[in-house]
Amino acid sequence: MNYPTIVMMTDFGADNISACAMKGVCKTVCNDLVTADLTHSVIPFNTWEASAYLIYVEPFWPKGTIFVSVVDPGVGTKRKACVAKLKDGNYVVTPDNGTLTHVFYEIGIQEVREIDESINRLPATKDTSVFHGRDLFAYCAARLAANIISYEEVGPLYPVESIVLHNTFYNPVIRENHIEGLITAVFKHFGNLFTNIHYEDFNKAGFKEGDYVDVRITHKDEIKFNQKVLYQKSFGYVDINQPIIFNGSNLVICLALNQGSFAEVYQISSGMDWRVEFKK
Amino acid sequence: MNYPTIVMMTDFGADNISACAMKGVCKTVCNDLVTADLTHSVIPFNTWEASAYLIYVEPFWPKGTIFVSVVDPGVGTKRKACVAKLKDGNYVVTPDNGTLTHVFYEIGIQEVREIDESINRLPATKDTSVFHGRDLFAYCAARLAANIISYEEVGPLYPVESIVLHNTFYNPVIRENHIEGLITAVFKHFGNLFTNIHYEDFNKAGFKEGDYVDVRITHKDEIKFNQKVLYQKSFGYVDINQPIIFNGSNLVICLALNQGSFAEVYQISSGMDWRVEFKK
Amino acid sequence: MNYPTIVMMTDFGADNISACAMKGVCKTVCNDLVTADLTHSVIPFNTWEASAYLIYVEPFWPKGTIFVSVVDPGVGTKRKACVAKLKDGNYVVTPDNGTLTHVFYEIGIQEVREIDESINRLPATKDTSVFHGRDLFAYCAARLAANIISYEEVGPLYPVESIVLHNTFYNPVIRENHIEGLITAVFKHFGNLFTNIHYEDFNKAGFKEGDYVDVRITHKDEIKFNQKVLYQKSFGYVDINQPIIFNGSNLVICLALNQGSFAEVYQISSGMDWRVEFKK
Repeated sequence: MNYPTIVMMTDFGADNISACAMKGVCKTVCNDLVTADLTHSVIPFNTWEASAYLIYVEPFWPKGTIFVSVVDPGVGTKRKACVAKLKDGNYVVTPDNGTLTHVFYEIGIQEVREIDESINRLPATKDTSVFHGRDLFAYCAARLAANIISYEEVGPLYPVESIVLHNTFYNPVIRENHIEGLITAVFKHFGNLFTNIHYEDFNKAGFKEGDYVDVRITHKDEIKFNQKVLYQKSFGYVDINQPIIFNGSNLVICLALNQGSFAEVYQISSGMDWRVEFKK
Repeated sequence: MNYPTIVMMTDFGADNISACAMKGVCKTVCNDLVTADLTHSVIPFNTWEASAYLIYVEPFWPKGTIFVSVVDPGVGTKRKACVAKLKDGNYVVTPDNGTLTHVFYEIGIQEVREIDESINRLPATKDTSVFHGRDLFAYCAARLAANIISYEEVGPLYPVESIVLHNTFYNPVIRENHIEGLITAVFKHFGNLFTNIHYEDFNKAGFKEGDYVDVRITHKDEIKFNQKVLYQKSFGYVDINQPIIFNGSNLVICLALNQGSFAEVYQISSGMDWRVEFKK
Repeated sequence: MNYPTIVMMTDFGADNISACAMKGVCKTVCNDLVTADLTHSVIPFNTWEASAYLIYVEPFWPKGTIFVSVVDPGVGTKRKACVAKLKDGNYVVTPDNGTLTHVFYEIGIQEVREIDESINRLPATKDTSVFHGRDLFAYCAARLAANIISYEEVGPLYPVESIVLHNTFYNPVIRENHIEGLITAVFKHFGNLFTNIHYEDFNKAGFKEGDYVDVRITHKDEIKFNQKVLYQKSFGYVDINQPIIFNGSNLVICLALNQGSFAEVYQISSGMDWRVEFKK
C-alpha cells in the first residue's frame, strides 16, 4: 500500500456516528485508503485545542500523512476551507479558523490552498451546508490521498501570511536558575500539566535531574501551588500522589502527581492567566 | 484490496472490549479484511436508534459494504439472525428485531436470509449463547466479505414482508406555508434536533432560505418552544446561542442553536409525542 | 497483506490523543502495518484489569498477532519492558508489571525477552521517559510485526518464572450440586457478573440448563444477594430485570439481569472479598 493514511480529528464526541460517514466517503473515493482517528473529543468549537492536539501527534506520522480536522463553528459561512502543506511534508485539511496555529509556529507551513468546491466537493451533497467534514474535507482529503488530484488541484493558493492564527503564543522568561512560563494545557484523564518551557531551555537555565525546585503556580493574583518539587525522569521517582517535574513526551517541562491528578487536586487549569515559576 | 469493509455498530459502549474480539474473528477468517466502527454507543437494547444510525451512515459507504449491527436484547432466544441485501448493494448482518426499519423504508431490502448456524457460526463457540456479535454475526459477515461464502450460502431466504419493523413511521402534514411533523431524533453531543420533514417538501411548501418562520414544538399538550426562527444554510448565520432552521446533512429539516444545545436549553426530546410546526 | 495486526490497549481514556501517536510510529516503521484498538479505558494504573482484558480478547485473533499493552505506572523506572511469546503463537508487548498474569496461567508463556532500548527504541525520543507506549512498546512491536527484527532481536531472554504476576488466582470449591467461587469481574456498561467457575465444572457438578439454583453472593460477612435463579442459555429466557445464570462468552458462569445491571441493582463489585455460592 503506497497511500498515506487519512488521520481524522473532530469535536463530534467519542460516541459520534458522523466520523463513520466521513470514512465511508474516503472508501468510496478509493477502497484502498486507510483512515485513523486522532480523537473526536476536542472541546466543541475549540480550535485552540484542535491546534494543540495536531502538533502533539503530527510529528510521529510518516511524511505525506493527511490530517483532517473538523472543528468548524463557522461551517457553511464564509470561512475558508483549506489544505495546508507543512514544511515537514504532511498535509492538514481544515477550516482556516485557528486550527493551524501550532503547526504554523512549530513546523512551518510551506503553502496553503483554498479547496475548490466546484471539483473537490462530494457531488451529491450540494443541498446541505452543515457537514463539510464529510462533504468537503474528507472527500478532498481522499482525492488527494488517492492521487486523483495533485496538491495543486486542491484549489487556488493564498498567502500563508493570511492564515487565521490564535495570537496567544507567549515565550517564557528565562534567567539562570529561574524560569517563568505558562500552564498551556492540562492533559485530560491523568490531570498532568504542560508548560510552554522547552526542556532544553530548562536544562540550560541550570536545572538538573535530581534537583528539588521551588514551583509556584498562580492564577491572576492567587497562589494555587507553592512547593519544592523533585525534577526527575518520570512519575515513579516519587511516592504515589506526590508531585514531580519531568520532561514530557512532547519535550516541554510538565508537572504531575504520581498516579494522581495534579489539575484536580490543586484546581489548576490552563491559559494566559495561569503562570508557573521555577526557581532553584 | 478488493474486499468490502465490515462496519460495526453495537450497544456495548465506547469503552468496550468486545468489539475487539469481533474484529479478531474477522481477521482470523481472512487477514486482509478491514473493519471500521460506526459507533458502539447505541442506547442499550434500543433497536430504533440502531436503525436510525444505520440509515445516517450507510449511503456514504461504497456498494458492497457489510454492516454488522449488534443491538440484541434477544440474543440466544428464537429471534432470527439474518443478512439483508439492500437495494443499493450493501448488506446488513443483524438480529431481525427492528434494526432494519429505516433501511426497509428508505433504501429498500431486496432479499433477506436467515443465518445457517450449522455452517456460519464460529465452530469453537457452540457452548455459549450470549455473544452472537462475535460467534455468529462477525463470523458470518467475514465469510461473506472474504468470498468464502456467497450471499446464497448465508442460509435460507425468508419473505422480506416478514422482517420485524418498528411501526412508528409517520408522515408530516404538508400545506402551503405550513408543515406539521415530528422531532425524530436529538443529535447527541451538539443537541441539534432532526425532524421527519424532507427539505425538498419544506421548500415546495413555500419556505425559502432567509425566511423567518414561526416554529412551535409541543410535547403532548405542552408548548416547549414558540419563536420566529431564521431558515438558513448553516449555524453561523445567527449569533451564538440563537436558534436556526437548516437543511441537515441527511437532507431533513433540522433545528439548532449556534454553538449551543437546543435540546438542553429547551428540554426537547424525540418521538411520537414530540410535534413540531412550521408556519410562515 | 501478510503482516500481523498490532492490537493496542492503554489506560489513556477513550478520548485520548496519545494512542494516535503510537499508531503513527507503527506507520512510520512500515506503512503496511495495521493497528486495532482493544480498549483505552482500562482503569488507570490497574494492571489486573489489563491482564483480564487481554485474555478475554486474545484467543479470537489470528496466531502471530502482537498485543501492545500500556498500563504503566512505573514508566521510566526500573520495571522491565518486555515481549512475551505466548504458547498459542501470539505476542504481548508490555511493561512486566502484572499485565501478563492471565495469559501466564490460562495460555502459557513460551519465552519472554526484555526489550533492548539500544536498538528497539524510537531514536529521536531519548530525552523523554514518560511515553514508552510510543517510544518503546509501539516502536518495538512495529519492528517485530514488519519483520525488521526477529523475536530473538527484541533483546535478552529472561526466565519465564521471574515474570511479575498478581497472586490472586483462586480456584473454586466444587462439590456435587454445590460450588463456591468468586466474582472476578463486573462487565462494564451492562453490569453482568463474571465468576471464576468454568461452565464445564459447573455442569459436571450437576447443574443443568433449566434448573433453578440457589445463588448467594456475600461481601465479607454481608449477604448481598440470596435468590433462586434460572440457569439458561441467555438473558431472554427470563423477564426484563429478572436474574439469570448463563455460560458467558468466555466460558465461565455469569450472572445478569435481563436488560438490567446486576452490579448496580444489588451493589456488587468484584475481587477476593466477593464470594458466590451456587447450590441445588
